[in-house]
Amino acid sequence: MSEAAIKARYRHDDSAAIHRNPAIDLLIEHRSVRAYLPDPLPEGTIETLVAAAQSAASSSNLQVWSVVAVQDPERKARLAALAGSQKHIVEAPLLLVWLIDFDRLTQLATARGVPAEALDYTETFLLGSVDTSLAAQNAVVALESLGLGSVYIGGIRNRPAEVAAELDLPPRMFPLFGLVVGKPDPERPASIKPRLPQSSVLFHETYAWTDRQHDGAHAYDERLRAFQREQGMAERGWTELVGDRTRGPDSMAGRHVLRNVLGDLGFALR
Amino acid sequence: MSEAAIKARYRHDDSAAIHRNPAIDLLIEHRSVRAYLPDPLPEGTIETLVAAAQSAASSSNLQVWSVVAVQDPERKARLAALAGSQKHIVEAPLLLVWLIDFDRLTQLATARGVPAEALDYTETFLLGSVDTSLAAQNAVVALESLGLGSVYIGGIRNRPAEVAAELDLPPRMFPLFGLVVGKPDPERPASIKPRLPQSSVLFHETYAWTDRQHDGAHAYDERLRAFQREQGMAERGWTELVGDRTRGPDSMAGRHVLRNVLGDLGFALR
Repeated sequence: MSEAAIKARYRHDDSAAIHRNPAIDLLIEHRSVRAYLPDPLPEGTIETLVAAAQSAASSSNLQVWSVVAVQDPERKARLAALAGSQKHIVEAPLLLVWLIDFDRLTQLATARGVPAEALDYTETFLLGSVDTSLAAQNAVVALESLGLGSVYIGGIRNRPAEVAAELDLPPRMFPLFGLVVGKPDPERPASIKPRLPQSSVLFHETYAWTDRQHDGAHAYDERLRAFQREQGMAERGWTELVGDRTRGPDSMAGRHVLRNVLGDLGFALR
Repeated sequence: MSEAAIKARYRHDDSAAIHRNPAIDLLIEHRSVRAYLPDPLPEGTIETLVAAAQSAASSSNLQVWSVVAVQDPERKARLAALAGSQKHIVEAPLLLVWLIDFDRLTQLATARGVPAEALDYTETFLLGSVDTSLAAQNAVVALESLGLGSVYIGGIRNRPAEVAAELDLPPRMFPLFGLVVGKPDPERPASIKPRLPQSSVLFHETYAWTDRQHDGAHAYDERLRAFQREQGMAERGWTELVGDRTRGPDSMAGRHVLRNVLGDLGFALR
């Protein structure tokens, strides 16, 4: 099973060295799930995911994140609309919205009458995005171990001010991404997406871009096309797809204004 | 075993609902390890961690990270000095430096003669920090499943320009954090760090800060003090510790200049 998963992940044969155990199999077999059954989640699921999330590392133990569990169908539908009308947000029973939370530290500092000026710096916001992400990824591993599926919703950043209003967020809270959680529909299964060869992303001692990198990307173009054919998707190479996505502000689903929106939400980003 | 881990994580009794299985136990039992044996890592370890990392979700499949595996003792020592003289970086056999990598997409766009202006925006940098973090956390889960330990090194951001020079990074590559990996020294075991109660970080439908939050933080102050006593550490409540850490630019280990440094490294952060 895991051998097949590794082959699906890389679609070539340089993966002989990879160690196997049930936890590693679980990680390699990850798929982003975009088709769910409407079944409610077993009791205790959310608390289990949060325990896993809180067990991730936290820089200086600052614990600068919170999460809002949205199960109300109407609120979920409104958030789906704000995030680019992704129907799986409506379909699945749970949307977790992961927040960089500087409100808690602000409130505690205010109560003690001490400054919290570090919260105004780019570095601290970046720290918040790292720690929130580590936490959410632990939740993903936990939910997959329970037979559930998920998909990250970066589209939550398409309209962050409106999302903040929907969730009653005070200043200095930022909805970093959503995570849809539910039982995958076995009739519409997700597949393991192939990735770049390891030689494209793993370097030893120092970094060097060489022609080998172009070769790796173009070999990957072909592997992704093979995947798309199998999935009945339109065929497009990766270099072309990422070129479209990173072309410029018009390819960013409205997110090119994020820096200003962050200012409005109380993040000075000094 | 896991029941004890959950008790260590929360130090109170509202955790009855948490589901258990070997993967969840692995997550809950996480510790940041700061004492290592000098043993080399088994062959294939790095490739296994990278396979786990590449299996994490990637926004629009952009795959905007790379990782440099540093094993050379002298380079590791120089990086340890740049990251605030953390001796475990020297002690352990491996330091992984996780990079937000916009060089790959820049090179590929240049080769195709197309623009990649989205890379100049705050949103895309933020996306890079999220995806790099998801990947690294998968590596942490994988390495713990292999009986290894790790600790994130945010101190890599104390002197990012010098770290970039040490690793020969071209423009638009940012060392987001390090990850020390090695075999934990059983004579100097790490403990499970207690976290805030779930009621402090988990909200339903909307967010609301209430007095309950102050109560939660202060209950946690006492739980952290109990942990510190057991560890023979100086006792200080969490609200006081985080207050010190977020006081202002002087409490940021030099990282208050990060925004300017990012500009120097080629990230416009529009």
